Amino acid sequence: MATIFSKIVNGEIPAYKVAENDKYFAFLDIKPLVKGHTLVIPKKEIDYIFDVPDDILSGMLVFAKPIAKAIEQAVPCKRIAIVTLGLEVPHAHIHLIPINSESDIIFSRPRLQMSPAQFEEILQSITSKLK
Amino acid sequence: MATIFSKIVNGEIPAYKVAENDKYFAFLDIKPLVKGHTLVIPKKEIDYIFDVPDDILSGMLVFAKPIAKAIEQAVPCKRIAIVTLGLEVPHAHIHLIPINSESDIIFSRPRLQMSPAQFEEILQSITSKLK
Repeated sequence: MATIFSKIVNGEIPAYKVAENDKYFAFLDIKPLVKGHTLVIPKKEIDYIFDVPDDILSGMLVFAKPIAKAIEQAVPCKRIAIVTLGLEVPHAHIHLIPINSESDIIFSRPRLQMSPAQFEEILQSITSKLK
Repeated sequence: MATIFSKIVNGEIPAYKVAENDKYFAFLDIKPLVKGHTLVIPKKEIDYIFDVPDDILSGMLVFAKPIAKAIEQAVPCKRIAIVTLGLEVPHAHIHLIPINSESDIIFSRPRLQMSPAQFEEILQSITSKLK
């Protein structure tokens, strides 16, 4: 069965798309820990990141790099953290999280409540830096 | 000035080395969140992971993959998490952390106290799976 992320890639479920190429897709996390929290996935549906074939795995951080730089410009932060847990959606994904302290990656924290307009605003801010 | 990680790579500071090739180095985190917590670094000293040149960045997760698989065999866990924060040592590094829940990557938690013998034991266990 297609994961929710495959459905996003295929356009069956809407998402705030940040970037896409033939192998990878990036979109805003709909339950963000902080503003600008973005997910990067391989389009190929593979549960565990360390089962992703080398030819796809090798490009993930390279694909994420300009996105991370764009998030940094859009959201005041010290760094863009990289986190992959793999305990929920069975489709490998990398969280890009703008952080100011290590506590910004505590996944049990309440997620930000953002309106569609707020998502659109941060999306525009990030994608405008990508161009 | 050389980072503590460069000193480890150069053998000036001892470390529990898990694996090494011409570009990357992996060693046990001396202040582990959980047993088997390992760091993967590029030998080239670059502070921020997203400033690492693509030719080195692209190999980091590929280098980490067999190490993650070995840690999984050595330490009971659901997954090997990937975390990069970049707030402390100014030398890009990826944490490989065997996790059973998302709380296993809370960096403010007290670190495990392990004796040199315990470090050697887990090191042997991981490296034996790499062969």
